Amino acid sequence: MAGLFPSLLLLLVPLSLTALAEASPSSTHDKFLPDKIARELAGYQDVVEQIVDYAVNGPGQNQSYDRLATFTDAFGSRLSGTQNLENSIDYMLEYLRKDGLDNVHGEDVNVTRWLRNQESARLVEPRDYVIAISSLGSSVGTPEEGILAYAIVVRSFDELVTRMDEVTGKIVVFNQDYEGYPKSAIYRVASASRAAEFGAVATLIRSVAPFSIHSVHTGIQFYNESLPKIPTACITIEDAEMLYRMEQRGTRLRIQLIMGAENLNMTRSRNTVAEITGSVYPEQVVVVSGHIDSWDVGQGAMDDGGGVFISWQALTTVRALGLKPKRTLRLVLWTDEEAGGVGSQQYYDAHKTEAGNYSVLLESDEGVFTPYGMEFTGSGAAMMVMEGIGKLLPEFLNSSVIYAGGGGTDVGWWRASGVPTGSIANHNEHYFYFHHSDGDTMTVLDPHQMDLCSAVWTAFAYVLADMDDLLPRD
Amino acid sequence: MAGLFPSLLLLLVPLSLTALAEASPSSTHDKFLPDKIARELAGYQDVVEQIVDYAVNGPGQNQSYDRLATFTDAFGSRLSGTQNLENSIDYMLEYLRKDGLDNVHGEDVNVTRWLRNQESARLVEPRDYVIAISSLGSSVGTPEEGILAYAIVVRSFDELVTRMDEVTGKIVVFNQDYEGYPKSAIYRVASASRAAEFGAVATLIRSVAPFSIHSVHTGIQFYNESLPKIPTACITIEDAEMLYRMEQRGTRLRIQLIMGAENLNMTRSRNTVAEITGSVYPEQVVVVSGHIDSWDVGQGAMDDGGGVFISWQALTTVRALGLKPKRTLRLVLWTDEEAGGVGSQQYYDAHKTEAGNYSVLLESDEGVFTPYGMEFTGSGAAMMVMEGIGKLLPEFLNSSVIYAGGGGTDVGWWRASGVPTGSIANHNEHYFYFHHSDGDTMTVLDPHQMDLCSAVWTAFAYVLADMDDLLPRD
Repeated sequence: MAGLFPSLLLLLVPLSLTALAEASPSSTHDKFLPDKIARELAGYQDVVEQIVDYAVNGPGQNQSYDRLATFTDAFGSRLSGTQNLENSIDYMLEYLRKDGLDNVHGEDVNVTRWLRNQESARLVEPRDYVIAISSLGSSVGTPEEGILAYAIVVRSFDELVTRMDEVTGKIVVFNQDYEGYPKSAIYRVASASRAAEFGAVATLIRSVAPFSIHSVHTGIQFYNESLPKIPTACITIEDAEMLYRMEQRGTRLRIQLIMGAENLNMTRSRNTVAEITGSVYPEQVVVVSGHIDSWDVGQGAMDDGGGVFISWQALTTVRALGLKPKRTLRLVLWTDEEAGGVGSQQYYDAHKTEAGNYSVLLESDEGVFTPYGMEFTGSGAAMMVMEGIGKLLPEFLNSSVIYAGGGGTDVGWWRASGVPTGSIANHNEHYFYFHHSDGDTMTVLDPHQMDLCSAVWTAFAYVLADMDDLLPRD
Repeated sequence: MAGLFPSLLLLLVPLSLTALAEASPSSTHDKFLPDKIARELAGYQDVVEQIVDYAVNGPGQNQSYDRLATFTDAFGSRLSGTQNLENSIDYMLEYLRKDGLDNVHGEDVNVTRWLRNQESARLVEPRDYVIAISSLGSSVGTPEEGILAYAIVVRSFDELVTRMDEVTGKIVVFNQDYEGYPKSAIYRVASASRAAEFGAVATLIRSVAPFSIHSVHTGIQFYNESLPKIPTACITIEDAEMLYRMEQRGTRLRIQLIMGAENLNMTRSRNTVAEITGSVYPEQVVVVSGHIDSWDVGQGAMDDGGGVFISWQALTTVRALGLKPKRTLRLVLWTDEEAGGVGSQQYYDAHKTEAGNYSVLLESDEGVFTPYGMEFTGSGAAMMVMEGIGKLLPEFLNSSVIYAGGGGTDVGWWRASGVPTGSIANHNEHYFYFHHSDGDTMTVLDPHQMDLCSAVWTAFAYVLADMDDLLPRD
């Protein structure tokens, strides 16, 4: 596990969220698009308009939002390894079949099983105060009676090293600044082992978020297997800052931490698959996807119910319009994305020999807010095709610009092996306000914004599935 | 109590928050300011600059923020009727004396005493789900075993009346839209009795906020004494919307509610007073104020620690600069504002015979974010004086515009009797994100913004206390 750490960490950070600030449009231009492909794309103008009309003004209007609301209200959060997730997968299998899709089935995955159970923290010195916590995925628990220990507060790993002599027997509180998700999430992922190296008994990490209303944000963490495993949880920005101020004033901090978290035996989950079988090249595939599991907080509506339901919507729309793409349009609802990505890893292992038949894997896992383009990782020639498709969409969908660096966590194995991947660029500037917290509910989503995403998602998926050729690779 | 309802309700809504959207600058102009007063004000130009420099760049820099952080970190929330509030008042009395202020003392107030105690709610049908709640101030509790009842969801009082036949024996959930605080807060304040009239057993009210990360916002509520008193609590926007969606789909909702809330015997609290005694007219008074009590959630940093500490800062600054205003500059830290305003009411009762000696009462209870003017309720002639003072302040403090309608809840009794009142106009657009929630902490405040508020607050307070005449009344 320790050896896997760096690559897993990279995978856990969606590329397009990483790149949001620096994302730059592709520098290619359609004047380089071969005439044959340009003419081919021009032939899709009418069908793209039909797709958009169906999604935004037609029978598709509000459909992905309403389906998602019905689903998340029924199941709530869907933690990998739980029966509730499996029940929600059964529900999806039933409704995908009812929707008339082909080859609807689950593909078994062995997943880890972590349970939060009861958790609480209390500042007992200098005053009695309940600290809100959210235990981190894969963390061990405390002894039943909890851990009562003095605490120190550091602002960085560098400060931890500087103060290593103070750490033994202490709870280490990390009050790192928020410097964007990828950079700051390292504190959530790695702090326990970093502090355990110097003898800490537990770590409490400032939630990785740019804004808070006393919000705790959970997420995965990994242990270095060669070091003692200590309990670790996130706390609010507000409490991290308060504890920091107290320590700066010379106040001694003592905290009682009780965590019932436990790691149980592996169990079975499933990736969910449904298709519109290709009319000419059924063995060739375009994947649209999202992950069906979520953290055990909120409703998992934004992360990643939105991605799941606009992806289903793509197949619904193509089928409802009577379109029969040449190659197979495959919906995959990944399992276990949050707990480490085992679902997509096992899918890759099972299907990688078919990689030559995969034109592109699209995953939406960074929000389904107002779209402003597509993100894409692939060859320059493929990028030009993507630009060409984007230009078929009406101006209000802002899809003619293709940003370099697309594809979510679950398609990372494919991206790493040279298969094109993509995702939807959308106005997710507030994504991390709600991410992995109780605030991830239907309230943050908007039916019209989801319709716009569905329109873009469906148009790209259909045209890519129907073009004469697979997307060109280097 | 029922008879008091309408007037109390008005008092509980700070005027300037009520009027934020519609606030309009005064239409008076300084060309009408009598020459004598214009000349007098011009004489304050230098001292106003000294005040601003002290507050923003001098020894006052960060001082109100640091003092407030030290205070709120030490005491946390300060509910009226609790020993913790009294301890925090003792602390203030000690530090106001150490600050060299005159006549530092508490003035006794008999206050109600309400305790939240344990509280929880759980949706048991259609699925098991923990509903976050915050019992409302003055609410009764449930029986120890709780209330288990079916629920209906309404969007307005009108809908409640339409569906009155469905209410008996039910928990009524209010999912009203947020239409600004004053309008929507009526649901928090009055829903219990409105629903009890038709036989409801409890009410759960959507938190009165424009934005949420699964946040519950508490606050006062009032019973109609002629109706059964039923337990009432706020829930999150997210949960209110989910319950509404479920009901719209025809799903039957059943909720278990357990609230330990209790109303105890009256107890003693204190308004806290400190002064710089007037050098010429010691019996004449200018009041600067905020309320020291808070709800029992968060830190009471914004509501109203900020108002308390910029008001103290005004006296600190005047004294540190060696200024000796002609009339008394009085700091009042009101108690019990949140629980019904008994502190300011009893202060008014005790001092109203001196009303002729009060030039103005300023209260800051709507945030201490970047200031953009002053709010004021008083005669046209007094408004002109306020404008004249505002123009002495440097442009970056944006204080030359005086908005009609100023003065917080605690100075409402004086305002109603014709005494001028004022407050600080500031960029509190996000105030209700945090209001009465665990999000009301130091994290939402900014040292520099507080310095800007202190500069404005101190300049107005000092000049008003030192001018030859009291503010003119109609």
